[in-house]
Amino acid sequence: MSLPTRITDLIVKDIRFPTSLEKDGSDAMHKSPDYSLAYVTVKTDSEIEGRGMTFTVGRGTHIVCCAVEAFKKLVVGQKLADIFGDFGQFWQSICSEDQIRWLGPEKGVTHLATAAIVNALWDLWAKMEGKPLWKLLVDMEPEKLVSTIDFRYMEDALTKQEAIELLKSRQAGKADREAELKNTGFPAYTTSCGWLDYPDDKIRKLATEAISQGMERFKMKVGGDIEDDIRRAKIFRETIGYDRLWMVDANQKWEVQESIDWMKKLAPYKPLWIEEPTNPDDIMGHAAIAEALNPLGIAVATGEHCQNRVMFKQFLKAKAMQYCQIDACRVGGVNECIAIILMAAKYNIPVCPHAGGVGLCELVQHLSIFDYISVGCSLKNRTIEYADHLHEHMEAPVKIKNGCYVVPTVPGYLVGVKEEAIKQFEYPMGSEWQRMFADGTFEPDV
Amino acid sequence: MSLPTRITDLIVKDIRFPTSLEKDGSDAMHKSPDYSLAYVTVKTDSEIEGRGMTFTVGRGTHIVCCAVEAFKKLVVGQKLADIFGDFGQFWQSICSEDQIRWLGPEKGVTHLATAAIVNALWDLWAKMEGKPLWKLLVDMEPEKLVSTIDFRYMEDALTKQEAIELLKSRQAGKADREAELKNTGFPAYTTSCGWLDYPDDKIRKLATEAISQGMERFKMKVGGDIEDDIRRAKIFRETIGYDRLWMVDANQKWEVQESIDWMKKLAPYKPLWIEEPTNPDDIMGHAAIAEALNPLGIAVATGEHCQNRVMFKQFLKAKAMQYCQIDACRVGGVNECIAIILMAAKYNIPVCPHAGGVGLCELVQHLSIFDYISVGCSLKNRTIEYADHLHEHMEAPVKIKNGCYVVPTVPGYLVGVKEEAIKQFEYPMGSEWQRMFADGTFEPDV
Repeated sequence: MSLPTRITDLIVKDIRFPTSLEKDGSDAMHKSPDYSLAYVTVKTDSEIEGRGMTFTVGRGTHIVCCAVEAFKKLVVGQKLADIFGDFGQFWQSICSEDQIRWLGPEKGVTHLATAAIVNALWDLWAKMEGKPLWKLLVDMEPEKLVSTIDFRYMEDALTKQEAIELLKSRQAGKADREAELKNTGFPAYTTSCGWLDYPDDKIRKLATEAISQGMERFKMKVGGDIEDDIRRAKIFRETIGYDRLWMVDANQKWEVQESIDWMKKLAPYKPLWIEEPTNPDDIMGHAAIAEALNPLGIAVATGEHCQNRVMFKQFLKAKAMQYCQIDACRVGGVNECIAIILMAAKYNIPVCPHAGGVGLCELVQHLSIFDYISVGCSLKNRTIEYADHLHEHMEAPVKIKNGCYVVPTVPGYLVGVKEEAIKQFEYPMGSEWQRMFADGTFEPDV
Repeated sequence: MSLPTRITDLIVKDIRFPTSLEKDGSDAMHKSPDYSLAYVTVKTDSEIEGRGMTFTVGRGTHIVCCAVEAFKKLVVGQKLADIFGDFGQFWQSICSEDQIRWLGPEKGVTHLATAAIVNALWDLWAKMEGKPLWKLLVDMEPEKLVSTIDFRYMEDALTKQEAIELLKSRQAGKADREAELKNTGFPAYTTSCGWLDYPDDKIRKLATEAISQGMERFKMKVGGDIEDDIRRAKIFRETIGYDRLWMVDANQKWEVQESIDWMKKLAPYKPLWIEEPTNPDDIMGHAAIAEALNPLGIAVATGEHCQNRVMFKQFLKAKAMQYCQIDACRVGGVNECIAIILMAAKYNIPVCPHAGGVGLCELVQHLSIFDYISVGCSLKNRTIEYADHLHEHMEAPVKIKNGCYVVPTVPGYLVGVKEEAIKQFEYPMGSEWQRMFADGTFEPDV
């Protein structure tokens, strides 16, 4: 197969899965999510295509698709040598398009759209090199890797030179760490046992099953009702014991003081972290919560709604996060994720990516594997979220073994969504949606 | 005319003005803006309509329109008594739509769309009461006014009870302040003389003309080249002297240290403030810049890209802004602007709204007049931005007299955009755009 030289087309599809039917994914702020994708295919002058995505929870996915279309003319026609030759500059040309940037900058719908496009370009690059994304990143020279980053607004936290030196200082032992990880896998934690609207017996059953499959780390949704949370916490600890890790996630539900008060009541059950206690923009609020709860052994974790590297810089500088939960699609794709991983390393904060959803597990595993081999060099306090839904629709689904992500070997990043899934779940014309509109299960979202 | 009882339709239009042709509005980050509106009309069961908008700078306006359409079903069919009876709750029902909120929450495209809708509802309410918006706000009982605010994530800065007490404490003298303002107008500053790409002689000519019309306050765009900025600063001070106020605006161009270094070179020309020195999300960066520059007599102003009340809370708590520049459309409309005005009052920070653009001057004058009469009670350090473009397209354009905004008397908020302007500038089918596509002045934005 000949290698591509330029981009000939960019196609975006709105793909939605009706997860709200089973309350999978329910939390304190998102009662009925339908896990969805704005799914981008970048076509080239060869047979190789790049596939990228951003994750959403249903309604509004078409708005992200609309934004992807608006960026299309910045991408189609570009030579791949120009893009990958100075990826940092190309990334900036999208994020700083001088009219569209007003709608952000670098946040919300336009940045989600940027992520979908940028992730497709990385998928393409990895396929061209015949490597899974993590391996492409691990093998890249530090100078080249750092050239993909837009360092604007980061200089007071991490300069380009510091980033290169940090990467160089951690070259020793890379081969050993790669071999080790291929052997052990990367530690996962599961969110699938503890959705907010799951009944007690379902929690008990799922957690017991997960343990029997080797799972060692568990997360529970909180923030609906404190008595419910205490009861569910007891069920978790009765089922998993106190030697396994257990975390809780409020999905932005509380005020600052409320977060502190609520978590004090859950402290006896020894959660490792409270995730997203309050609004994701409230840096100083998170810092106040951390200051109050850290003495109780409870850390603050956040990041899945943290919009860009500038916001992560605030959280890191303000000691407002003890766990950095990057999302592969919330920020502007791989380039910005690398920037945040490097900043977190400088501030000694472990990166534990947000996943679950659909497609996110497939993406973030590459980022964590790269982090371990090339940047963080430690598995201490590192774990990747895992939820067991919808992987059957992926061309290269994640594999979990003994509670760990198996290091992927298929070339690419997302690799792709199966054609059959697209036919069924493209919104609104896919066969499954048409069936569910016809039988009244759903009303079309106009 | 009978009063409306419910909303029967919501229509959104993409209206763009080709301001890039004359470099009006050019700054360090937005070289060629085409000032635009996502323009919302709320129709009712009477002849009274509400008109609202959000401001954009050209490409991507259709993405905001797409988001407005996505919220449509939350608005159409609603009873006005329900909306205005608990406007805070209605506002929250839009901002926290449990699937669409994933795309923000409360930031970027979806929040701009929220603003356009919410502003139309306030326009409708003011028209129903037969009052300009500022008067509707000024006459409202504190409890009622505060019921329009969503206090989530604000409690550690300002509680509902504190807000009510603050408003009550400033009731005395309201009638006097209203009478005074009708007499004097509200102080304006002009941005129209100092766009980045204006040649020196144009700056001198425009500033001289402005002085002859009574203008006392001026702003200049900076951040392209330091030598250019120094030369332009000299021209300004030669033309306006040192008794008039002069501010500078970098539109997010610099790093933190770069902001400090650059402004030290402009300090001899005594700017009142440096506006948006760096990325709008960099709260701690702004605080560091303020700490370094305040001893030189230079304040930090920011807010036009500040996405919501939670971010304003960070800036206020961190002493990162000495002037609070709310934008009537960046945050979620009047409700959130009132929340921010009240928080700023508590932290003793003057509010000087962002305007210019198109339609923004028409909107923010109401917010500042309300602020003066009911909240801030002082004109010290208060001034509203003014740019003299595109007002001819407004049904109720602002009036400037002796360098001050004349207090508006027409019922409503935006009131409306003229039908003729819509016919010419609706994008892409308006007659002016079709003419400019045909003669090659512009290519259609696909």
